[in-house]
Amino acid sequence: MKSCGLVVEYNPFHNGHLYHVKEARKITQADVIIAIMSGSFLQRGEPAIVDKYHRTKMALQSGVDLVIELPYAFAVQNSRLFAKGAVQLLHALNSTHICFGSESGKIDPFMTHYKHMKQNKSQYQHTLKSLLSQGLSFPAASKHALEITLPELSLDITKPNNILGFSYVKEILDANLPIQIHTIKRIHNDYHDVKITNSIASATSIRTELFKEKSSQQAIQSTIPQTTHKQLMSYKKKVGIWHHWEHYFPYLHYQVIKMSTNDLAQIEGVDEGIEHRLKRTATSANSFTDWMEQLKTKRYTWTRLQRMFVHILTHTTKQQLEPLKELNKMPYIRVLGMNTIGQKYLNEQRNRRIAPFISRYSSNMHPLLAIEEKVSRVYYCPLPHNKQKKMIRQEFRGPIIERN
Amino acid sequence: MKSCGLVVEYNPFHNGHLYHVKEARKITQADVIIAIMSGSFLQRGEPAIVDKYHRTKMALQSGVDLVIELPYAFAVQNSRLFAKGAVQLLHALNSTHICFGSESGKIDPFMTHYKHMKQNKSQYQHTLKSLLSQGLSFPAASKHALEITLPELSLDITKPNNILGFSYVKEILDANLPIQIHTIKRIHNDYHDVKITNSIASATSIRTELFKEKSSQQAIQSTIPQTTHKQLMSYKKKVGIWHHWEHYFPYLHYQVIKMSTNDLAQIEGVDEGIEHRLKRTATSANSFTDWMEQLKTKRYTWTRLQRMFVHILTHTTKQQLEPLKELNKMPYIRVLGMNTIGQKYLNEQRNRRIAPFISRYSSNMHPLLAIEEKVSRVYYCPLPHNKQKKMIRQEFRGPIIERN
Repeated sequence: MKSCGLVVEYNPFHNGHLYHVKEARKITQADVIIAIMSGSFLQRGEPAIVDKYHRTKMALQSGVDLVIELPYAFAVQNSRLFAKGAVQLLHALNSTHICFGSESGKIDPFMTHYKHMKQNKSQYQHTLKSLLSQGLSFPAASKHALEITLPELSLDITKPNNILGFSYVKEILDANLPIQIHTIKRIHNDYHDVKITNSIASATSIRTELFKEKSSQQAIQSTIPQTTHKQLMSYKKKVGIWHHWEHYFPYLHYQVIKMSTNDLAQIEGVDEGIEHRLKRTATSANSFTDWMEQLKTKRYTWTRLQRMFVHILTHTTKQQLEPLKELNKMPYIRVLGMNTIGQKYLNEQRNRRIAPFISRYSSNMHPLLAIEEKVSRVYYCPLPHNKQKKMIRQEFRGPIIERN
Repeated sequence: MKSCGLVVEYNPFHNGHLYHVKEARKITQADVIIAIMSGSFLQRGEPAIVDKYHRTKMALQSGVDLVIELPYAFAVQNSRLFAKGAVQLLHALNSTHICFGSESGKIDPFMTHYKHMKQNKSQYQHTLKSLLSQGLSFPAASKHALEITLPELSLDITKPNNILGFSYVKEILDANLPIQIHTIKRIHNDYHDVKITNSIASATSIRTELFKEKSSQQAIQSTIPQTTHKQLMSYKKKVGIWHHWEHYFPYLHYQVIKMSTNDLAQIEGVDEGIEHRLKRTATSANSFTDWMEQLKTKRYTWTRLQRMFVHILTHTTKQQLEPLKELNKMPYIRVLGMNTIGQKYLNEQRNRRIAPFISRYSSNMHPLLAIEEKVSRVYYCPLPHNKQKKMIRQEFRGPIIERN
């Protein structure tokens, strides 16, 4: 069976994602579409609006055949590590194709960019280092370093999806993996859009509308498949909320006030002495957003701070993640859900798979999976206690199987 | 000025405490009554019903002249360490008298008991050790060891106030401190009473009545001074609650699910592998009380478990407390409140005091005081965020001064 991998968050699954699934299948003629999906917390350092199981159902009901979890250790990271985890998972699954959405929409500029970067690597890294030492944030510094190193850019790497796409390309080519790379052009919306203007809208704009006190059901429903709408409603009915950073503010605040600055400095993403500012601002902040505003500087971007806060909330230390970053192959493949096609594909792979399939927790978990369990428990903390118990049971129960 | 010290929790201040203050003044002819009071969390491992400042006001309005904080490191501990902290504080304040309530009501049995214990120390300790190794809880083992070592007991040390009183006596005589010891008989109530039957009722029974959905105002008011009633009401009006373990359950649960068993084992009071049972029961427990019921065994008494939970909640490690337990003198004296008499006494002591007076936090705090600040912040966590901020400000503002 021919397979194509997509790297996704589906927060929530919308019409743009549906287009992506269909186009990927068309371009690659794949028999099976595999989604590598982040779990409870996402790359920009936010809790997923609904849990991984409801997002898995959305995917399976809209054309995805197999949903695999991108471990937390890679999911809440910069684009390099995020891409590394996702690509290595696809490789472990013997996926021979990848298809990502980008602002560019053409694969050649990515390939050219990779070649140029490789040729000018040392000059680029030297410039980057010098710009970082001048106090620039990483995104700004890498942009300027590129402009200086490669005055004639083939790829606009100020665009978020081009950046992420390039990270996949780089990981695949650096590791020399047998994966064919495809890209499709993102249409009708900008990643950072906060307003819905079209039937293909950004996930950000859909979430913004969902969280409004009087949200427009019509606007929302025009941008998402009916099945997504059903899952969103079902989740809220079941647990009472759609997850939002403000739900975690009491826990985050509690965590920071009781930790020493030394302990805070052990947490992933707490760097360059920000632990002192964290302690100082813990009392004055009135909400999560207020806290973010107090901490934000040119150097500490919004995303970087949010990711740091996720690691503080989940108490994920540098020490825990350090060895995992050096992993050269995935230690396991965790199946969140599949349909009959996905199941058939998995059976086909059983003998030649690179990593063991895991669908339940066991007492002897890999450290990566142990982090996952803890993170899930923290994710459900804002729910009433009886609902936490109910939701956490799913984590132990195994994958969703959608008959079609 | 002649001073007499009382070791108290005032949770809340009631008619029995009022009697204690009056009797202590009468017996010792002291000019100034000093209360050494626990702060946010109490010896039996519970949050104080209202904060230390409202309890300080209750005391000052009922005849106490000076209120000094017993540091958390001593306040949430077994009777030996609790007594050590309290007695050493009184000594640092040049207090020449101590008066405690006991079931016995006579000081001679305490002295005789001390003498006998000293003479038979090694035999007692040997027996105690052997009983503990058989799996008995500490209170049960020490009771049996005593019965075996000293068949003719002069003091009934199954009574909680006799136990605590004996700890004061032991600390004073062991350290050879110039403090005269007095005791008065506790009247009309048993420490563990949960029902109000008299105008002198136990604090436990008063709290039980206060927490009832339809509490009897008449029953409560008959057992506490009017000033206590006023402070209780004022606190609830200000912050919305009287503190109860169940308010902390979400934080405690969050703390345990995200900590590893190794990290849990670093916490004060987490001993003998209970960290594994803590993790296992974290999900099944539906409330704080339910959790306690699931954990309780013959060996892990209710009080021991509650103290452990306080240390988990406040993230107080063995390493943090270890050096403090070996302290031979108090590193500072923290004044919570005083009236003009108390103030005069403090002025008199300024030149001959043993430890520095502290009334505010500073950036260069003693580790003991740094723990206090953290613990206070955790104590206020169940309040709405704006109220937490308001209450925590008091901690930095300095002592209450009651003009009379």
